[in-house]
Amino acid sequence: MRLPKKVTIKEVGPRDGLQNEKKFVSTNDKLKWIQLLEQSGLSYIEVSSFVRPDWIPQLSDSSELFMALNKKKDITYAALVPNKRGLTRAFVVDADEVNFFLSASETHNRKNKNVSIEDSLNEIKKMVNECKDYGKTTRVYISTVFGCPYEGNVDEKKVISLAESLLALEIDEISFGDTIGIANPYQVGHFLEHLLQVIPVEKCAMHFHDTYGRGISNIYESLRQGISVFDASTGGFGGCPYAPGASGNVATEDVVSLLHSLGIETNVRLEDVVRAATFISDKLHKQPTSKLWNVIQTTKEF
Amino acid sequence: MRLPKKVTIKEVGPRDGLQNEKKFVSTNDKLKWIQLLEQSGLSYIEVSSFVRPDWIPQLSDSSELFMALNKKKDITYAALVPNKRGLTRAFVVDADEVNFFLSASETHNRKNKNVSIEDSLNEIKKMVNECKDYGKTTRVYISTVFGCPYEGNVDEKKVISLAESLLALEIDEISFGDTIGIANPYQVGHFLEHLLQVIPVEKCAMHFHDTYGRGISNIYESLRQGISVFDASTGGFGGCPYAPGASGNVATEDVVSLLHSLGIETNVRLEDVVRAATFISDKLHKQPTSKLWNVIQTTKEF
Repeated sequence: MRLPKKVTIKEVGPRDGLQNEKKFVSTNDKLKWIQLLEQSGLSYIEVSSFVRPDWIPQLSDSSELFMALNKKKDITYAALVPNKRGLTRAFVVDADEVNFFLSASETHNRKNKNVSIEDSLNEIKKMVNECKDYGKTTRVYISTVFGCPYEGNVDEKKVISLAESLLALEIDEISFGDTIGIANPYQVGHFLEHLLQVIPVEKCAMHFHDTYGRGISNIYESLRQGISVFDASTGGFGGCPYAPGASGNVATEDVVSLLHSLGIETNVRLEDVVRAATFISDKLHKQPTSKLWNVIQTTKEF
Repeated sequence: MRLPKKVTIKEVGPRDGLQNEKKFVSTNDKLKWIQLLEQSGLSYIEVSSFVRPDWIPQLSDSSELFMALNKKKDITYAALVPNKRGLTRAFVVDADEVNFFLSASETHNRKNKNVSIEDSLNEIKKMVNECKDYGKTTRVYISTVFGCPYEGNVDEKKVISLAESLLALEIDEISFGDTIGIANPYQVGHFLEHLLQVIPVEKCAMHFHDTYGRGISNIYESLRQGISVFDASTGGFGGCPYAPGASGNVATEDVVSLLHSLGIETNVRLEDVVRAATFISDKLHKQPTSKLWNVIQTTKEF
């Protein structure tokens, strides 16, 4: 077994981490948070989402936020986009990468997007082509890959076939999401063994939630299968508004701690991630859910 | 890869879970907690420790607690014993199994037991022989197997050699402890691959703490290596008083949730474990650290 030598962490905290939080974080505080994330060495930050402001009020300042960024070279600033209207807004603020999403289960897709998976695919196809015209890279999140809050089990074959359809659109990366944190590492291993027979590993990222405390075990299993891109959220905040019971993303600091203990390079400084977690935690008036944060509170040590 | 079909969870909550908690839980409440644990289907409960009452006041009622048990057949009620004096007390109350402990690192052993590892081994040898005379089964915890709070790295070969010395004493089971929760699954896999060349798998149990959120990943790796006995603490309480920064044991409910999601039998009813976790959590005025408990608070669902 050989684990990857280097792993890229894609920080989704400012979007996925915040979208389910009721306490509004000001644009200025979001900016300060993003600055702390930049300082930690993270090379990818999903800054916000161009959804309808009345759907997710927390992210209603996405345009202002993007416009106020003092972008660093070597960092990709991505925007989540649900539809054509959102895409235009992402172009206007010159987001570096455009991220789309759809679900592996029909019911979740309809609750989340109000259309069928097939219609979502067709819409994404058009938007990806537009991104190419504007020289933007693209990423697609597939939600409910390992289980759906409405339908329960999700057929692995269906997910792989969906991934193949997306690959045919020349998407730059597909992020496979365990939206409700229900996956176990056996399931993840089984899925990846089959997925990676048809999708090149460099096109795949994994996106785990830590609802049942299996996020780290699922990441380790993914590493064993050769995956080297993981989504994570500083402080472990987050959760899908259309997935009842879904708790936060796996915490960036716990992922970095695992990777460093395995001798895997991340270019991320753990102490700076913890600083960023503490900052946003103060603004949300909520403790980070990460284990590492808790250790540091007790021991003042890493 | 084949995972075990059936796993035994050894509940160490009443001993390891409580020993570091300052708020004294009355003997009567401990009894009620143990009854809830019995009802959940757990087949092994480490009831208390016969250490000096002034060292760990929380467990100073061990004799009264053992005498008040209404023992169920098919459940093993074990006692932790540090020395000859404790052993006599365990015999007096007729504990079913006697558990000893020592560390893989010299400094931790001295801080914990005030003697060298070699002296600990000699003392354990004598006590194991006495247990045989009284028809008691025995278990030995090796602490700091994957890292020591004082010495840092611990040599894998040293741990395996220590385990061989214990095996020669005809101990019934050795529990390998990640006292400070520092292990990662690669390390666990590497260790077990070598350990299981010299120690029969049926003699081995794993004891993980969830300090850095790697407990579940370490259990999964152990399952892959064939281990089928795991220590856990309901509610995830616990921590070693002689291991600064060590947080709780991996939570029984998170372990059961993982195992059931893998289709592994435990004979344990998850909802009853959660009930037991809620009970002791109320008595300690502290929330369980388990992810499952948190899910249930949010969704009222398993």
